[in-house]
Amino acid sequence: MTASAFDHPYLSGLLGDEDIAAFFSADADIRAMLRFEAALAKAEARHGIIPDATAIEIAAACGTFRPDMLALRRGVGTDGVVVPELVRQLRKAVGGQAAENIHVGATSQDVIDTSLMLRLKDIDMVLSGRLSTLLGLFDALTHRFGSNRLMGHTRMQAAIPITVADRLATWSSPLADYRDRLVHMQATAFPLQFGGAAGTLDKLGNKAAAVRATLAETLGLADRPQWQSQRTAIADIAHILSLITGSLGKFGQDIALLAQAGNEIQLSGGGGSSAMAHKQNPVAAETLVSLARFNAVQLSGIHQSIVHEQERSGAAWTLEWMTLPQMVMACGASTRVGLALAGQIERLGG
Amino acid sequence: MTASAFDHPYLSGLLGDEDIAAFFSADADIRAMLRFEAALAKAEARHGIIPDATAIEIAAACGTFRPDMLALRRGVGTDGVVVPELVRQLRKAVGGQAAENIHVGATSQDVIDTSLMLRLKDIDMVLSGRLSTLLGLFDALTHRFGSNRLMGHTRMQAAIPITVADRLATWSSPLADYRDRLVHMQATAFPLQFGGAAGTLDKLGNKAAAVRATLAETLGLADRPQWQSQRTAIADIAHILSLITGSLGKFGQDIALLAQAGNEIQLSGGGGSSAMAHKQNPVAAETLVSLARFNAVQLSGIHQSIVHEQERSGAAWTLEWMTLPQMVMACGASTRVGLALAGQIERLGG
Amino acid sequence: MTASAFDHPYLSGLLGDEDIAAFFSADADIRAMLRFEAALAKAEARHGIIPDATAIEIAAACGTFRPDMLALRRGVGTDGVVVPELVRQLRKAVGGQAAENIHVGATSQDVIDTSLMLRLKDIDMVLSGRLSTLLGLFDALTHRFGSNRLMGHTRMQAAIPITVADRLATWSSPLADYRDRLVHMQATAFPLQFGGAAGTLDKLGNKAAAVRATLAETLGLADRPQWQSQRTAIADIAHILSLITGSLGKFGQDIALLAQAGNEIQLSGGGGSSAMAHKQNPVAAETLVSLARFNAVQLSGIHQSIVHEQERSGAAWTLEWMTLPQMVMACGASTRVGLALAGQIERLGG
Amino acid sequence: MTASAFDHPYLSGLLGDEDIAAFFSADADIRAMLRFEAALAKAEARHGIIPDATAIEIAAACGTFRPDMLALRRGVGTDGVVVPELVRQLRKAVGGQAAENIHVGATSQDVIDTSLMLRLKDIDMVLSGRLSTLLGLFDALTHRFGSNRLMGHTRMQAAIPITVADRLATWSSPLADYRDRLVHMQATAFPLQFGGAAGTLDKLGNKAAAVRATLAETLGLADRPQWQSQRTAIADIAHILSLITGSLGKFGQDIALLAQAGNEIQLSGGGGSSAMAHKQNPVAAETLVSLARFNAVQLSGIHQSIVHEQERSGAAWTLEWMTLPQMVMACGASTRVGLALAGQIERLGG
Repeated sequence: MTASAFDHPYLSGLLGDEDIAAFFSADADIRAMLRFEAALAKAEARHGIIPDATAIEIAAACGTFRPDMLALRRGVGTDGVVVPELVRQLRKAVGGQAAENIHVGATSQDVIDTSLMLRLKDIDMVLSGRLSTLLGLFDALTHRFGSNRLMGHTRMQAAIPITVADRLATWSSPLADYRDRLVHMQATAFPLQFGGAAGTLDKLGNKAAAVRATLAETLGLADRPQWQSQRTAIADIAHILSLITGSLGKFGQDIALLAQAGNEIQLSGGGGSSAMAHKQNPVAAETLVSLARFNAVQLSGIHQSIVHEQERSGAAWTLEWMTLPQMVMACGASTRVGLALAGQIERLGG
Repeated sequence: MTASAFDHPYLSGLLGDEDIAAFFSADADIRAMLRFEAALAKAEARHGIIPDATAIEIAAACGTFRPDMLALRRGVGTDGVVVPELVRQLRKAVGGQAAENIHVGATSQDVIDTSLMLRLKDIDMVLSGRLSTLLGLFDALTHRFGSNRLMGHTRMQAAIPITVADRLATWSSPLADYRDRLVHMQATAFPLQFGGAAGTLDKLGNKAAAVRATLAETLGLADRPQWQSQRTAIADIAHILSLITGSLGKFGQDIALLAQAGNEIQLSGGGGSSAMAHKQNPVAAETLVSLARFNAVQLSGIHQSIVHEQERSGAAWTLEWMTLPQMVMACGASTRVGLALAGQIERLGG
Repeated sequence: MTASAFDHPYLSGLLGDEDIAAFFSADADIRAMLRFEAALAKAEARHGIIPDATAIEIAAACGTFRPDMLALRRGVGTDGVVVPELVRQLRKAVGGQAAENIHVGATSQDVIDTSLMLRLKDIDMVLSGRLSTLLGLFDALTHRFGSNRLMGHTRMQAAIPITVADRLATWSSPLADYRDRLVHMQATAFPLQFGGAAGTLDKLGNKAAAVRATLAETLGLADRPQWQSQRTAIADIAHILSLITGSLGKFGQDIALLAQAGNEIQLSGGGGSSAMAHKQNPVAAETLVSLARFNAVQLSGIHQSIVHEQERSGAAWTLEWMTLPQMVMACGASTRVGLALAGQIERLGG
Repeated sequence: MTASAFDHPYLSGLLGDEDIAAFFSADADIRAMLRFEAALAKAEARHGIIPDATAIEIAAACGTFRPDMLALRRGVGTDGVVVPELVRQLRKAVGGQAAENIHVGATSQDVIDTSLMLRLKDIDMVLSGRLSTLLGLFDALTHRFGSNRLMGHTRMQAAIPITVADRLATWSSPLADYRDRLVHMQATAFPLQFGGAAGTLDKLGNKAAAVRATLAETLGLADRPQWQSQRTAIADIAHILSLITGSLGKFGQDIALLAQAGNEIQLSGGGGSSAMAHKQNPVAAETLVSLARFNAVQLSGIHQSIVHEQERSGAAWTLEWMTLPQMVMACGASTRVGLALAGQIERLGG
């Protein structure tokens, strides 16, 4: 089953990203959800809500538990979320009285949103690392070719000559900004979600804030009141993803136009054609444009999801699930392809 | 690798569709592409472009050939399309002089767009069949509950009483229209793509139109001049997909509102909660809304792709690959979930 | 107040369209709404619901009545729709017993949707006429330059030579299809909306269908059961609008790329620059791309509106109001600019 | 000419915003553009590029000059931008040698983008002020009704009771965040655009950076290297606009659902119906949902514009013109309507 180009057996050779995809495997999601349950048990034990020994038992089980995937699939079909069935299986695996102390005071959204944030925080580092590498490649190109002359173009017409350094600055300066944003996001952009049934942590009484703080600290996420119906954090992340793909799309479009004109660039490793043996297609450049336009489209879905009715909206939330992972994948692919394309530039300007 | 909810090991329990997904497997795509190559060889043989015996040899090979998938993946990474590597492998498998007679006069886009159309034509029948079944369920509901009173609502306020039959008509009449459109689309909406390197079938000389007509007939597709840079057929298909998910989204939204009010509907089989054992969530209804909004978003990407520069745009075309299959999947899921939801209605009105 | 580029005192020089804009003036809308009320009175008189003399009186008043615009504006602010205040003013203007026979059995949406359809039907003819003219220009270009050689480009790289006629066919064939569709749409694509308070025409009893048929015939619109919560007709119209702007966007993009390369096209009348006196910018070509991308974006809003809850959704309907008129304007501007651009082509190919 | 609901004679009663619209009048744009030209002349005089007396003469003329609007409209139609004709008229008005010292080293985009930023910076303050007022209203509602019981709803089903304060926190906390962001944006989010013909300020030699710094300081904008092909600043502004409308859309959706259920809210001033005298429609609540979905759609266009080829793209830039002002207007209307709706709440919970 491969409707998504990002996950496709061969299209992923162009559009996939193995590093990023690993964070969206079912296994990675389950491990992060179990990490939440283990950390929750420990935090609740620390604040006297469940026994210490039980928390240790739960955490140990979370480390080794392997769910029945087909039953999870059936559960999602019925419940709309995987957590009821996952918790049921986990409770059965733990057994005894400890089983009752799993998932205490939490709800499905706590588990799923937190699992997402744990993985997005790691992805954020991958992306900032890649942008740093790409900025290094752009610096090297500036060093080699920066003083070369390039015809500046405005409105698709030759304007006045600029330098290669001028053009490279238009590619690198937004990306340097985004890299810095990604680095700063580590501290606050990835919040724990923890609210319980209707966002009030009603089961935890006056220990709610303390448990939440401990849980956030344990998981390395920002401590913040529940945001289950307030999706700003998701939209902020989608924003930076689409900025990155957008600016890399500009880079790609510029390269494709340079390659079409032909005299101011030399590229290695273009793509071949099944009909014309002589062609060297700027495939990577075009792909960056596609990924930019794709994320510009998806972003609309994320903002539609901000209209998130009442305490929790299944409709709005499910729309995020269909949209955000693919935006991340597109951004992963874009940074990967952007790096490849920068590496293919053998000459710029003249 | 499962960034897409449609292909996901457990999210597909909610959002997947096994029947439709089968058409988007790598295997289904490859089989359809090989079907194109086999039919092309036969058509070219019939018109004296390649020897008959060679065409038989090629067709036989296309029936049994199994490509090296990793090499295909690498090929897509380099060439941006799978066909150069696929044809290379196929030629190697066939060998001898026949190898030279494979893919004569064709280009990558001919193979890929035609493979898509072959599968979309079959999917069209699946969808029209499902809508017919759903219309039958709506008829049955009208028969059972049609004369029941239902409070009509306008602008989210009780207006005047209507009947259940009135409401059911607003659900079924657009879907009946779409079902009829899907049926009519069988004849003309799924065209062969065959244009060669730059759309002129330059290699086939004055036999071009005849070969194309034979090829279209063999494949059961509409015969039409190449449309490689003219994507109306794709946009028309995307239009009906989003109409279907949109109108089913209206059905879902109405059911969710009825379920919230509670007194005018009885639903079986709602979803459970990990925090509140008493809840019966109208998961299917919400899912229909999500899928409607998802396709409304994706449609924008399809229309961005209409700006398809020159004889063939890698950027615009690749954007379609990321978008259309998911629209089809969303429509598949929506019809599947719509059927399930209609079946869960145990009472309407009062 | 000029936030819209289409209505802007000077930006409309580039993006406006006076012919189309005239259909979206407040005055045109009011006249069409009064046309509905007059035709309704006559239809109801013909079927014995209101007295003939009263209908004549109402129709006469509708022909001369000039509303208090400020009061209409206040009314929309309170009611969300203009009709309650418009009908109040009209009743006051008519006075006496006839006043009570205005708007009998109708609701706001009947008036507003029907007014829109009346104007869209006329706009449809304007657009089909323009496409016919444009197709004539393309034919003339084919006649003059069709056998000239043009370098075919695929994936932003020179591929093999084609003829100017080949390229022109990729521009004109989708537009010829759209022109034919627009012509066919005259018969069925513009339906009367007439449903009353909750779509059941409850006030008209067993005369409802007859009144509706007469009303549709009088107004020259298709007779169809109410579609107030079923927005397929709107989405179908939006589809053709975005197809037209999309295919003209492809034309524009191709011209801009030809103009950038410079050797295969000669254009008259390019735009000047405030910084570079020597430049001739292909402004019309770029504008076509902008308008294509604009409508590709807006289309998403129309499809979001298909999720139209219950008997009438203020939220979904109001979203249409913000979106559809602008799509029409963009399509108007695109056909106008497309004609201008085709007229600027002094040479193609070589 | 009133295709835009925001500018429409009567629809603006619902969807317009007079305060914000004033910033998008042609007059406001022209005054801001002339402010740029005046400040540029002064900055260039300070750094010895043009004579002091000339700068004073130019600045004086910019204060009183009234352009020929019809000629501006024609100019935009030809040039794609208003600046060449505006500068031509301004030079004519100034006359003599001073005329030559107008617009020295600048290009159209410098004038237009800077005019936009000047006005957006003021709008930013209007919006933050409104959000502060709205937060005050929410605080007052919390004070009055915060301890009332409200049924919490998840997935469109009653879940567990929460308090009115809990619900109000989900409305106010994102808006408080946005208000703070808007305040912080005053310092850095509104940059001067100044790059000259191709972004290199080639005409100003080694005084370029100094002139730019002076110009930024005079205009009260952030000093930053030209961003004419790097549209992050625009996308960042669009992001906050859509966040605001999105979160107010959630508020509106919640109110509409409360109003439909009827027992937990009392609203004053609902809208009337032309068919049903008894109805009180939650028009403001629905409008907030419409505006949220509208901006979620438009945002996609802004991100498409990030693919901004070469030194300046007419196609991408023009797409911004059609999109961003309307997003601002929608955000203005949303804050205005949100304030009105908060003021209509007479009771919450019970």
